[in-house]
Amino acid sequence: MHILVTNDDGVMAPGLLALAQAMQSFGQVSVVAPDHNWSISGHVKTLNRPLRVVEATLADGTPALASDGAPSDCVALAVLGLLPEPIDFVVSGINPVPNLGHDLTYSGTVTAAMEAAIWGLPAVAFSLDGPEGEHMSEIDYSPAARVAAEVVSLALKHGIASQTLLSVNIPYRPYEQLHGFQVTRQGLRIYRDALIKRTDPRGKPYYWIGGDAPTGVPEEGTDIGALQAGLVSITPVQLDLTAHQLVADIAAWEWSLAEAPAAPGKDGSA
Amino acid sequence: MHILVTNDDGVMAPGLLALAQAMQSFGQVSVVAPDHNWSISGHVKTLNRPLRVVEATLADGTPALASDGAPSDCVALAVLGLLPEPIDFVVSGINPVPNLGHDLTYSGTVTAAMEAAIWGLPAVAFSLDGPEGEHMSEIDYSPAARVAAEVVSLALKHGIASQTLLSVNIPYRPYEQLHGFQVTRQGLRIYRDALIKRTDPRGKPYYWIGGDAPTGVPEEGTDIGALQAGLVSITPVQLDLTAHQLVADIAAWEWSLAEAPAAPGKDGSA
Repeated sequence: MHILVTNDDGVMAPGLLALAQAMQSFGQVSVVAPDHNWSISGHVKTLNRPLRVVEATLADGTPALASDGAPSDCVALAVLGLLPEPIDFVVSGINPVPNLGHDLTYSGTVTAAMEAAIWGLPAVAFSLDGPEGEHMSEIDYSPAARVAAEVVSLALKHGIASQTLLSVNIPYRPYEQLHGFQVTRQGLRIYRDALIKRTDPRGKPYYWIGGDAPTGVPEEGTDIGALQAGLVSITPVQLDLTAHQLVADIAAWEWSLAEAPAAPGKDGSA
Repeated sequence: MHILVTNDDGVMAPGLLALAQAMQSFGQVSVVAPDHNWSISGHVKTLNRPLRVVEATLADGTPALASDGAPSDCVALAVLGLLPEPIDFVVSGINPVPNLGHDLTYSGTVTAAMEAAIWGLPAVAFSLDGPEGEHMSEIDYSPAARVAAEVVSLALKHGIASQTLLSVNIPYRPYEQLHGFQVTRQGLRIYRDALIKRTDPRGKPYYWIGGDAPTGVPEEGTDIGALQAGLVSITPVQLDLTAHQLVADIAAWEWSLAEAPAAPGKDGSA
């Protein structure tokens, strides 16, 4: 069993170390992670520039590889042959903030696991509902790491369906105070971004996407509801984004090339 | 009706111009697009640096705004108040290459439309199955622009369900040779990436993600199958990535904190 560990916070993040240590009881562990933070970076495939890979060492002495690519690039590099042995399982995290609701497609942690699923590998993304404002290195990842070991143990036993992955969100509390596990659906995230306009020393405007941290609707059965109830949330995620329930309805629209209004442009007809 | 036009190829891309022109018959058109190419950039929210916005002019004289953010950032900027009037509808493209199967989460064109859907706006992403290797500026976007006008006309009439968007892929052929429309599901993309290792002038290795362009399984009813049949593919895409069909199965795994194997680490138990 050869497990690839990656993340989006960078190879030196303590959440990565905790996850790598938690995986060691399952077999061989390889770490390929970004050399810097890629949070909210989305699903990236770097094709227009070459990628560098350098050797690194985790705080416990574990050898690792660090790449200047995105988390999904790290998975692609490893799958495509950077590592001498084939990979059997991919884990990503432990992210210090949760990935809930619509966070999934933004999340480097989750899109790394998506990349693994695209390459046919079972994959789990781990995120901690860590305390806001506290420095990453002060977070205690050990309860989340125990949870990660439990999840991977069950995933290895039961398998993860093809073209799917698991996104796990873990409450931030001592292991003994976790209330259990819940398999959930994606909840509704409420973003509270606000645009902040400022002026640089040369009088030119620039903009921050600011505002408050997102909240969410803590509905029963969702990832957001589970975290609020002190439960570890296990969301199965699929690569098929089709809104299947809409296909028949939309097919009933009046589709007809003959009736297409001519667009203004090269044909001069409008 | 105030339509926002964006893309991932940059504000000067001819596909953006064709789309902006095609939208003019529906109402007010505003263009906010990246100042450079963001292909395969994924779903980004730029929070760790400020964004610049400068005035630009499309080739036909249409005023536009160009940002150094990602396509999804352009949508967020516009929604959050960069533009004086509220936005009613968002279109993205026309991308010169198709976005099929698993391309969706990588695609700047599609993730711009996702960002709009997250903000509660109807949105459509347009991609052309353009000729490989040909320079972008040599592509004739006028048939695709007519298709875009037809799709938006029907979407305005029927509405797009909340938390969903449309991803449209258009065969590259004269308008008269298009065979019609098909509402499709996401097909299976086959990536053929290969890792290419090279050595720089200082003897250090670097890596390209190379290999051949992706292919796909042209199954009937899928986006890939539609394009192969000369049909415009309309795929309804949802923001809910939950693999609902797996929730009950995974809930039946032996979830139990008591049985969790202690992870090696801070508690020293392994």
